[in-house]
Amino acid sequence: MSVLSTTDPRTGVTIDTDITPTSPEGVVALTAAAAAAFADIKTRDRLWRAGLLRALADGLEADRAELVPAAMAETGLPEARLNGELTRSAFQFRLFAEAVDEGGYLEAIIDHAAPTPMGPGPDVRRMLVPIGPVAVFGSSNFPFAFSVVGGDTASALAAGNPVVIKAHSSHPVTSQLSFASLERSATAYGAPLGTLGIVYGQAAGAALVADPAIAAVGFTGALSTGRILLDIIEKRERPIPFFGELSSVNPLVVTPGAAAERGAAIAEGLFTSFTGSAGQLCTKPGIAFLPEGEAGIVAEIVAKSEAAAAQPLLNSRIHGALDEIRTRLIDEGRARSIVAPKPGPEGFTLTPAVLEIAASDVTPAVTEEAFGPLLLIARYRDLDEVRSALAAIPDSLTATIHSAADEVELTASLTAQVQDVVGRVVYNGYPTGVRVSWGMHHGGPWPATNTQHTSVGVTAIRRFLRPLAWQDAPDYVLPEELRDGTASIPRRVDGVFQLAAS
Amino acid sequence: MSVLSTTDPRTGVTIDTDITPTSPEGVVALTAAAAAAFADIKTRDRLWRAGLLRALADGLEADRAELVPAAMAETGLPEARLNGELTRSAFQFRLFAEAVDEGGYLEAIIDHAAPTPMGPGPDVRRMLVPIGPVAVFGSSNFPFAFSVVGGDTASALAAGNPVVIKAHSSHPVTSQLSFASLERSATAYGAPLGTLGIVYGQAAGAALVADPAIAAVGFTGALSTGRILLDIIEKRERPIPFFGELSSVNPLVVTPGAAAERGAAIAEGLFTSFTGSAGQLCTKPGIAFLPEGEAGIVAEIVAKSEAAAAQPLLNSRIHGALDEIRTRLIDEGRARSIVAPKPGPEGFTLTPAVLEIAASDVTPAVTEEAFGPLLLIARYRDLDEVRSALAAIPDSLTATIHSAADEVELTASLTAQVQDVVGRVVYNGYPTGVRVSWGMHHGGPWPATNTQHTSVGVTAIRRFLRPLAWQDAPDYVLPEELRDGTASIPRRVDGVFQLAAS
Repeated sequence: MSVLSTTDPRTGVTIDTDITPTSPEGVVALTAAAAAAFADIKTRDRLWRAGLLRALADGLEADRAELVPAAMAETGLPEARLNGELTRSAFQFRLFAEAVDEGGYLEAIIDHAAPTPMGPGPDVRRMLVPIGPVAVFGSSNFPFAFSVVGGDTASALAAGNPVVIKAHSSHPVTSQLSFASLERSATAYGAPLGTLGIVYGQAAGAALVADPAIAAVGFTGALSTGRILLDIIEKRERPIPFFGELSSVNPLVVTPGAAAERGAAIAEGLFTSFTGSAGQLCTKPGIAFLPEGEAGIVAEIVAKSEAAAAQPLLNSRIHGALDEIRTRLIDEGRARSIVAPKPGPEGFTLTPAVLEIAASDVTPAVTEEAFGPLLLIARYRDLDEVRSALAAIPDSLTATIHSAADEVELTASLTAQVQDVVGRVVYNGYPTGVRVSWGMHHGGPWPATNTQHTSVGVTAIRRFLRPLAWQDAPDYVLPEELRDGTASIPRRVDGVFQLAAS
Repeated sequence: MSVLSTTDPRTGVTIDTDITPTSPEGVVALTAAAAAAFADIKTRDRLWRAGLLRALADGLEADRAELVPAAMAETGLPEARLNGELTRSAFQFRLFAEAVDEGGYLEAIIDHAAPTPMGPGPDVRRMLVPIGPVAVFGSSNFPFAFSVVGGDTASALAAGNPVVIKAHSSHPVTSQLSFASLERSATAYGAPLGTLGIVYGQAAGAALVADPAIAAVGFTGALSTGRILLDIIEKRERPIPFFGELSSVNPLVVTPGAAAERGAAIAEGLFTSFTGSAGQLCTKPGIAFLPEGEAGIVAEIVAKSEAAAAQPLLNSRIHGALDEIRTRLIDEGRARSIVAPKPGPEGFTLTPAVLEIAASDVTPAVTEEAFGPLLLIARYRDLDEVRSALAAIPDSLTATIHSAADEVELTASLTAQVQDVVGRVVYNGYPTGVRVSWGMHHGGPWPATNTQHTSVGVTAIRRFLRPLAWQDAPDYVLPEELRDGTASIPRRVDGVFQLAAS
């Protein structure tokens, strides 16, 4: 049987791995094991699950010295970034453990039996329960934050579901090692066999989404791949939820006041944001609106871009697609090149590129997501041009507004415009570097995502839960969290929010 | 232009109405008005919206004397049931007003800027915001609870969205009058034009789902119609969430202990539950598992069914479909008729019907949802037969367990079995008569519904909201609910749940 290969994007050198694509029978065996594990995990309590998440975090950090170099060789991302990403994923496991301990995510509600205008109302108790085995598709650009390890895996496990991961073809070895780390920790902790599984290869990924034992899919990747997986789901006898984080342009607006007040800082921040991780972040600002005639910021970005060293892109496909999009925009006369990218000596490398356009020429045709260190600068004459241009841009994960403190009316007006079309509005900062916290929302209207859910932050757990109600249930069939008496979690009782007993 | 007709199912007599099908231009005008209203409603606060919901409730009750007779003539449902349903819908508007006032449904979270293991974390604040104009499809069987008036309309408005309703063809006049009631109240309250809209006719319904201004769809009805609407959504440039309540068999299990202890009460309750509203409830128990040889319950149900008067079904299609399903089960030798239905003297009327089958013969082929007063009794020899049969039944909105107080292990084991495949488990009661309360969940795995959401109870509002986050936002762009200081709503601040200031 043929083995999977792996390519070092820094050099372009491809070598064989010892990994074979998962067979159809292999996929079935893994999802059957996941279903069996699900039945087991359901019998364990919240605190057990929180402990599992903490064990995975500890294991991940213990394996750092093995994992980070593997990811460097397969993604070309810098060591510091990958170290930070691994830290972030360990932190996320621990934060989700805290959320599981605390129990608010269960949304527990108790309505005691009571008279209603329609007659006597029965006792009704509701909370969220795990949905079942979850398929997680690793992304190319976050080998630790949205891959075998990362937000989707952490969310699904925190909710109480087994996970079967589809490894991304761009980093099979990192996936294999990450999975081995998770599996070691889970086994040592006493998690049942089947709590975690992994498949390799495109066919295995498709089979996973079609598999009747899979109850939901978490996906971070290209819109086109998302569409393919959605089509598979449509053909299932029983459709399942698909949580896709798909595509985002992330407009950034610099007002005249902000440009005048702190142009140098904005140039520095914007350059770092669109070139960090070689611009391969779903929240990369893809288009920046600057006042016509503004010279300082653009000159500084041009200078920094021209001086920058070539960075490797994740793989040849991304490298090729970026060049194709850039060239097409120029050839079709839609944008003007002000910094052309230069290739490095080897591998899938290049330096940052900058294009320029009039804001009045912004159409959906110029705002296709360009993955990589490419920035489109849109020059506006007045804010009406910005408003029209924003309306032409596909809805995004984020929008960013840089304004001066006294531009109150303008900032409020831009906010009103963008908050209808994004999931997060950033002020005087940058959309990259998504904080993992209780309130973070990483989502947005189509095509940013295809649901009303987030894939970062504690509320990401909600994706892999479903409500269940018990009516007039005897105490012994109820989860501990829904029984009368002292509550270990916050609950709503007869319409009134109550904090957990401390 | 042709007008819509309406049929009295009690007599079968059809007359013309003054209602014409909505033209394509009419649909566009209504959705444009809804989009304009959305922009206006967003500028108003929660308390304004709660007041609107209360005004709609008051208006509905004031118009009771006009609405109930209209619904009787178009649905054939009894006056007491329709009066109760209208009361329920008014109650629901008021309960949702209470929830809007209270504000917990906003899921407000504040994470102040703080150090993290990955460096300084920005200030992040998140809450739920309205999704945009919602299309609501009225059902045939609930002219006031899931139609122009009802749960979907109340949820969408409570969330802050305009609503455009597709009237059900089975009760156009009731729809017209209900809409006029809502519109009068909304106008008197000062709601902007376009807050509410209504379309008539199948083509207009399809156009509504395809309309770019529509942001979500609420649907209660047949699985086949749901599939058609989902197909339309798939073809949209921008897919939107579809919340469908589609089909449900609602198994009910009577244990040997319960049958011995209170057979007469169960016969009475089960008969009422499967024949009430002529069995046209999505939560009707469609299949009841009884111990083999049990004689009392079945004899009583047979006697009651044979003595019952004929009831009208909602329309000729439902009347015909019920007969077709029943006849096919008998003709194919899958079930034995123990009570045959008798037609009434006129209209789409019939008396209750009862079929019998061995639990070991239960397959998906015998458990198609049969809308109407038809009960399938499945006789079991042991609980293993029940477990196997339950596994063969499509997932449902509800499952019901009747057991004796000392059958603890059995009840727990049946609970574990059914709670994976339904949204609500009912004990020693009946699944019909869904309580409208904070904790009610009316949903379930496919084909009961197609999402992880409820269409009854306060959490139904969640369907028509989406999360939005603000990062390092100046105070003046934040919603009042997310500003620092005294909070009028419960919030999670830096990970800790806090009650509203009283």
